[in-house]
Amino acid sequence: MAKAPVLTPRAEDFPRWYQDTIAKAELADNGPVRGTMVIRPYGYALWERMQSEMDARIKAAGAQNAYFPLFIPDSYLRREAQHVEGFSPELAVVTHAGGKELDEPIVVRPTSETVIGEFMAKWVQSYRDLPLLLNQWANVVRWELRPRIFLRTSEFLWQEGHTAHADHDDARDYARKILHEVYEDFMVNVLAMPVVVGRKTAKERFAGAINTLTLEGMMGDGKALQMGTSHELGQNFARVFDIDFSDSAGQRQIAWTTSWGSSTRMVGGLIMAHGDDAGLRVPPRLAPVQVVVLAVKEETAERAAALVAELRAAGVRAEADLRTDTPFGRRAVDAELKGIPVRVEIGPRDLAEGSAVLVRRIPGGKQPVPLGGVAAAVADALAADQVALFEQSRRRRDEHTVDVSTVEEAAEAAASGWARIPWATLGEEGEEQLATQAVSVRCLVREDGSVPETGDEPDIVAYVGRAY
Amino acid sequence: MAKAPVLTPRAEDFPRWYQDTIAKAELADNGPVRGTMVIRPYGYALWERMQSEMDARIKAAGAQNAYFPLFIPDSYLRREAQHVEGFSPELAVVTHAGGKELDEPIVVRPTSETVIGEFMAKWVQSYRDLPLLLNQWANVVRWELRPRIFLRTSEFLWQEGHTAHADHDDARDYARKILHEVYEDFMVNVLAMPVVVGRKTAKERFAGAINTLTLEGMMGDGKALQMGTSHELGQNFARVFDIDFSDSAGQRQIAWTTSWGSSTRMVGGLIMAHGDDAGLRVPPRLAPVQVVVLAVKEETAERAAALVAELRAAGVRAEADLRTDTPFGRRAVDAELKGIPVRVEIGPRDLAEGSAVLVRRIPGGKQPVPLGGVAAAVADALAADQVALFEQSRRRRDEHTVDVSTVEEAAEAAASGWARIPWATLGEEGEEQLATQAVSVRCLVREDGSVPETGDEPDIVAYVGRAY
Repeated sequence: MAKAPVLTPRAEDFPRWYQDTIAKAELADNGPVRGTMVIRPYGYALWERMQSEMDARIKAAGAQNAYFPLFIPDSYLRREAQHVEGFSPELAVVTHAGGKELDEPIVVRPTSETVIGEFMAKWVQSYRDLPLLLNQWANVVRWELRPRIFLRTSEFLWQEGHTAHADHDDARDYARKILHEVYEDFMVNVLAMPVVVGRKTAKERFAGAINTLTLEGMMGDGKALQMGTSHELGQNFARVFDIDFSDSAGQRQIAWTTSWGSSTRMVGGLIMAHGDDAGLRVPPRLAPVQVVVLAVKEETAERAAALVAELRAAGVRAEADLRTDTPFGRRAVDAELKGIPVRVEIGPRDLAEGSAVLVRRIPGGKQPVPLGGVAAAVADALAADQVALFEQSRRRRDEHTVDVSTVEEAAEAAASGWARIPWATLGEEGEEQLATQAVSVRCLVREDGSVPETGDEPDIVAYVGRAY
Repeated sequence: MAKAPVLTPRAEDFPRWYQDTIAKAELADNGPVRGTMVIRPYGYALWERMQSEMDARIKAAGAQNAYFPLFIPDSYLRREAQHVEGFSPELAVVTHAGGKELDEPIVVRPTSETVIGEFMAKWVQSYRDLPLLLNQWANVVRWELRPRIFLRTSEFLWQEGHTAHADHDDARDYARKILHEVYEDFMVNVLAMPVVVGRKTAKERFAGAINTLTLEGMMGDGKALQMGTSHELGQNFARVFDIDFSDSAGQRQIAWTTSWGSSTRMVGGLIMAHGDDAGLRVPPRLAPVQVVVLAVKEETAERAAALVAELRAAGVRAEADLRTDTPFGRRAVDAELKGIPVRVEIGPRDLAEGSAVLVRRIPGGKQPVPLGGVAAAVADALAADQVALFEQSRRRRDEHTVDVSTVEEAAEAAASGWARIPWATLGEEGEEQLATQAVSVRCLVREDGSVPETGDEPDIVAYVGRAY
């Protein structure tokens, strides 16, 4: 089947391809206020699936969801010295409400960190109240001058975890638990993304953190996207917000805290990591629609609907496309654009022959399947293609990652992918040099791929690249 | 076991009891900005269960979730004439962002109605695009001068559905479908609330609607709480936002729209409808924790944890309370305050006897149960108590609803509950008279309890009462 060139090819203009895909796959639109976005039903369904998978892991890690207010008194943010003069450019400020000017301006939360700190201080009194493990799903606002849909928007949706612990070890272990059991497990096993998991350098670390752990995904253009972070905040944050407790001996102790977050940015990451020139490719475990069954003509609609019922009964997220008044080719392209893993087409001739055509989005290719065998073939395809997508991504990542031994080579490699360079060779000086060329150290990992305890360990490798 | 009087008794001061319950059951706190709230983990878990049950019904009704921006240009709201001069007192207005004053002020959404209208106009072109069935879960802001937690807060969480249809009948049927299959089904079968479902009078109707359908719950003090509404907007809204389409004959037609919403108010309704002097009573089908297994002493902790695993395997939402360093009585009171339907206590003597004590929150009362029979006894109790709570509430509602035949009697009955009065007797004049005494017509229903098609049908009864 000849396909119309619906998208700008990636090789020609990657950012344009990204925007085309978002528009044509009906993922999102720009909102009326600069930098905001309207997440359309299919884009939101992707986010809902991410939320649902992440939320189950967050709960399994023992954290509880709560909800803190959108509005924060200006004074809360002024605790942090850098905001004292005027408003920080990233903040949106409410000055009028109730029909008049407010006595104190109100900030629309850029994060709930400060309010959560206040309430943690109230709720934590004794060692019995620890650990306090909180998570919030919410919208936050950070004014963006150069917005890019899903990647950098003035309003975005995210989860922010905030936890308080009795000692350093417990906080450190929990930040790692979230990193591996929530983020890495989700990204590898659901998003099919071979993220590199490591530790940020002092330069790239979150302000106020004693350690920032990160997961970096490689996009289709070789750039990195930070997919999530987990921070150990030491006692810094607890000291500012007076989060202290009496230990079992009745002594006052300052708590140790962590915070960790991931956002609708991941939708952008999904598009850019897996998409091809025909559109999105959604990993089967994530896919809100795993299988679409297309009735080619009206006379096959009934059989298509029955097949959907059969697939659903087998636990597959299946939808029927019975829009037989829309040209078949357009509907097939639509399913490709949306990256639906498996498409089952039933035409009048197929029906007469008792078969259907199974089209797989990830490896590509069509095959006829007897109607009675569709459910089994679909199950096999979904399982195989989840693995295939991860393997393709890993191969691409490895092909675009080179081992280098000088700063110059690192900068050169970053033009089309990532470089791996011994941290002892690069060092903070080399890091500064790369920064002048918009290349950054994405993270530090051990030779065996595990996450270093400190930045001073020998044999640490730096992953270096350009980033979104 | 003697209980400390932890809450103000309802009969003494109902609003105070409500606040006490929210604080002691750890449902929510006041936020730092006036009128906002912090929803604590247990309160949020109740809301999450509501969301999950409602969301499944909304999806089953064919609507898709989407997300629209928090920020709305001031000009969008000025389309509606009443906002032309100054800002409406209910709006919070952002005037500064990006570190400077904005050219055009931005409003924090009081509803997404206007933005959704704009985008519906863009997405709807042909009759093939209809019906367009959208829903959004989001936070909205309406400045409150007399805030009351969960019931009337400056920021609240809600779902708002907005749909567009090709004709009047389809829109009317859909507004009813949401009313019955989403709201009524959820409120009756999950929340165990015997809501009265009816039609608003012209006076109480949503501005711009041609028909507002409502579900009214009776609270513990005899007042009404509007638990959800579903509006037919006719072509009024579509006309303002240019939502039109070409029909199958190629003619331009204006769409027919509906909107429908429910919010965190329902948490307030749950508390006030079912709570007693010992705290909350949560219906088993809603309960985030259906069973708490208390280890009375440390030596029974292992058996308690095993029982929780067994209950979970049987599909019960069970939690262990192994805090044996906290006095047992305090933990039992905590479970009562939180309204957990079933409490299973395992003490050392119970363990020696191979039994446990099962305590049911809704009917009250304790009974010993052999350890091997706990799972079955729990399943029976959860099923029976869901029904019992509904029946108790219905009985209370019926006892506090009287049939009257004059406006004076209606006003008198409204002091402690509801009155039913023929609409032909009351009429708009009687409605105005009642309004001067803060009594309103909650809804109009047919004699048989069904929802009238119009307000002009004969034999319509008005439910009259005070309301939150």
